Amino acid sequence: MRTAADESFVETLRDAVPGLSLGAPGASYLEEPRGRYHGLGGVLVKPTSTEEVAAVLKHCHAAGVAVLPYGGGTGLVGGQITEDGPVPVILSLEKMNAVRAVTGHVLEIEAGATLLEAQQAAEGAERLFPLTIASQGSARIGGVLATNAGGVNVLRYGNARELCLGVEAVLADGTVISGLKHLRKDNTGYDLKDLLIGSEGTLGIITAATLRLFPRPAAVGTAMMVVESPAAALELLELAEARMPGCVSAFEMISGQGLRFLDEVGPEVHQPFEARPDWSVLIEIGLPEGLAPEEALAELFEAAEGLVSDGVIASSESQRAEMWSLRESLPEANKRIGSISSHDISLPLPKLAAFIEEARDALLDLGNIRINCFGHVGDGNLHFNAFPAEGRDRKEYENLRRAIPETVYDLVDRFGGSISAEHGIGRLKVGDLERYGDPGKLAAMRAIKAALDPKGILNPGAVLAER
Amino acid sequence: MRTAADESFVETLRDAVPGLSLGAPGASYLEEPRGRYHGLGGVLVKPTSTEEVAAVLKHCHAAGVAVLPYGGGTGLVGGQITEDGPVPVILSLEKMNAVRAVTGHVLEIEAGATLLEAQQAAEGAERLFPLTIASQGSARIGGVLATNAGGVNVLRYGNARELCLGVEAVLADGTVISGLKHLRKDNTGYDLKDLLIGSEGTLGIITAATLRLFPRPAAVGTAMMVVESPAAALELLELAEARMPGCVSAFEMISGQGLRFLDEVGPEVHQPFEARPDWSVLIEIGLPEGLAPEEALAELFEAAEGLVSDGVIASSESQRAEMWSLRESLPEANKRIGSISSHDISLPLPKLAAFIEEARDALLDLGNIRINCFGHVGDGNLHFNAFPAEGRDRKEYENLRRAIPETVYDLVDRFGGSISAEHGIGRLKVGDLERYGDPGKLAAMRAIKAALDPKGILNPGAVLAER
Repeated sequence: MRTAADESFVETLRDAVPGLSLGAPGASYLEEPRGRYHGLGGVLVKPTSTEEVAAVLKHCHAAGVAVLPYGGGTGLVGGQITEDGPVPVILSLEKMNAVRAVTGHVLEIEAGATLLEAQQAAEGAERLFPLTIASQGSARIGGVLATNAGGVNVLRYGNARELCLGVEAVLADGTVISGLKHLRKDNTGYDLKDLLIGSEGTLGIITAATLRLFPRPAAVGTAMMVVESPAAALELLELAEARMPGCVSAFEMISGQGLRFLDEVGPEVHQPFEARPDWSVLIEIGLPEGLAPEEALAELFEAAEGLVSDGVIASSESQRAEMWSLRESLPEANKRIGSISSHDISLPLPKLAAFIEEARDALLDLGNIRINCFGHVGDGNLHFNAFPAEGRDRKEYENLRRAIPETVYDLVDRFGGSISAEHGIGRLKVGDLERYGDPGKLAAMRAIKAALDPKGILNPGAVLAER
Repeated sequence: MRTAADESFVETLRDAVPGLSLGAPGASYLEEPRGRYHGLGGVLVKPTSTEEVAAVLKHCHAAGVAVLPYGGGTGLVGGQITEDGPVPVILSLEKMNAVRAVTGHVLEIEAGATLLEAQQAAEGAERLFPLTIASQGSARIGGVLATNAGGVNVLRYGNARELCLGVEAVLADGTVISGLKHLRKDNTGYDLKDLLIGSEGTLGIITAATLRLFPRPAAVGTAMMVVESPAAALELLELAEARMPGCVSAFEMISGQGLRFLDEVGPEVHQPFEARPDWSVLIEIGLPEGLAPEEALAELFEAAEGLVSDGVIASSESQRAEMWSLRESLPEANKRIGSISSHDISLPLPKLAAFIEEARDALLDLGNIRINCFGHVGDGNLHFNAFPAEGRDRKEYENLRRAIPETVYDLVDRFGGSISAEHGIGRLKVGDLERYGDPGKLAAMRAIKAALDPKGILNPGAVLAER
């Protein structure tokens, strides 16, 4: 049984942790970007050190008070909002945002720093921290790791998990795990780092991390190319990787629907192709010294004869920025149109093209729907989102709000894909995980949760259903 | 309390799993490469399917019989040998070695296949499975994953963990986890794959895995270069990675002692440098189309003026093979000399050179010792091994058998390194892990072990001390 973070508990905490920042949460802590969840309130706590985090958790654990870890608030699956149960402690590490150390290969940084701050710290050391997501100005490292964020550079550099060498974290009972290794190789016991990464704050609170830094590529090139189909996009990727193994850093597919949404509702961006192509890709490469990326992209374009019908190679930094601005405006256009249902999914690459066709047909059978399918196709990761027909409102589709995701996820499941490629489970997909998840995996997850957080105080209701 | 795998248990198993291969283990199952551990015997079981593995574990769990997972027997820390306790079931998956599927990006293979078989299956699909270790002809995929093997290509491609997309595994009670995803991105719940990888058979038995395949580099180049010191080697690496980010696939440091061991005891290999240099590196690069690796290496050599005093660039496949043969003969030469104590350690790169000096001085203070320090220096991973002086036998150093590793590990600990970079804990380093491991991490490991294997039947005594 959990208890509320009531006045008397707040008094206990105030006495036990002198100087701890404690207060009522502002509205921003009770909302999330898609407006589906509304927080029930609670006590906002902002520790300034790992010791304070440990002390807070120790007391919450003793009293059975729920702890809701809050990063930058940018999560899209409700992992940061609790709508029911006794009011929780909302734990924000925003005051812990120091860069603790930076070397040529490692950035040691506190969990409250934003992803952008981490990137900037790397830049300051003339290095690259390659993780890049649209919300990087607000998303904090703790949340980025807790949700194993992905983004546009996973293809070459890996996701948050692969970019993290170690974590410092606090378990439910206040036990501190000090794992801030600056090591590429360390086989000393179980991989708690990766267990905590992606656990969405249900197993522990990450307070700091060591992140991998990379040399910056000698030269970067960016292009947009028109392809006939998703299958052709994947063939183009294959060709690019065969010619430049390990050098393709982004390969984003964009559908004509997305481009037409931009025409319809903005944001206004430069579109490189007059006729909006049904399918195009944004490709970015980073090459060793001695190779000119524009030439390599031009050669790729030539080699891809038959696959690629048109293309533009960025010849300046501003043209590169324009291409990325187009790509990054797609989610905003989606938001303005207003989706009926959004799906962050991944598929095995050999099945991806067939999935897109089957899923489209299946959704069109359900009703008069527009589909914007785009994403990190090099990773097999699609944002496969359903929208109302032109001139209609999503409220008119209430009757399909369950049928659409079920149709998509059933198909994803049949194709051996994932119902959450990069956004996580949060609260939105708890039922979906129960339905599509492997029963053996779910049983093991519950056993681990019970072992590390026996009172279930950490982010209750996220990832795993409460029993 | 565990019970022995006695006659009556064997009968139970025989009845419960008809057709199961059951018998006495041959000598090879009771030995390990360094001759430190001698198995106490047991019942050798060779299942042919995941269902059989699950049935065996279920019965072992019910009866409290220990299960000793046995891969290729190549582990160097005694993880595959049990010397005490009731006699165990020795579980070998050697009959489960099928390639289940191979696509352009994924190899799905059973745990009993050797690493070499996995590499060959990738080659058959014109792909690369880059994990490369000396014992790859015998080491099996299950063991490679259970110990998170490393080797010479981690620098570019990652270790076993990073090369594995998913596992199928059986938990202690027979629960099957079906996680053979062919996906680069999958954020659906806790990362059990990475928890099982590196757990050395103490949390579950991996029965199959999906492994990442890569395009083969358009062109590969290999060189050996003479450097003045480990610090110069690291500067050379820095320079190489700045010029060819992501393209340096191996960077191995070799000490003069290692070369002199080869002169002294063989194996006979071609040595490129007449005078045995104190420090040299073997560097391998894989480049995109349009770049000639020999030229790139020659340019690197020129750019490294002041760092590199001599060098040989392989101009044929046979020269490449010769260089690798030299590198791969070092462990055999070590074996013939006979080490007093071997240390598979890793250090933060900025501290690696200072460590080598301090550790050498500290060991020379202990006695008349020869040190062969070599390894995957690009990953910060050293094999820092102590040998008797010329003409003396390691038996004469019995009095230092504890002092040497303690001295090395104390220093590793002080430098923020790892006491096991790639070989794991096994039984050899259980005490060291207790001594140097983070107490919070150890407590969490014990909680997880108790949750997933409450009777402690899986590889008892490995990784965690039994209480």
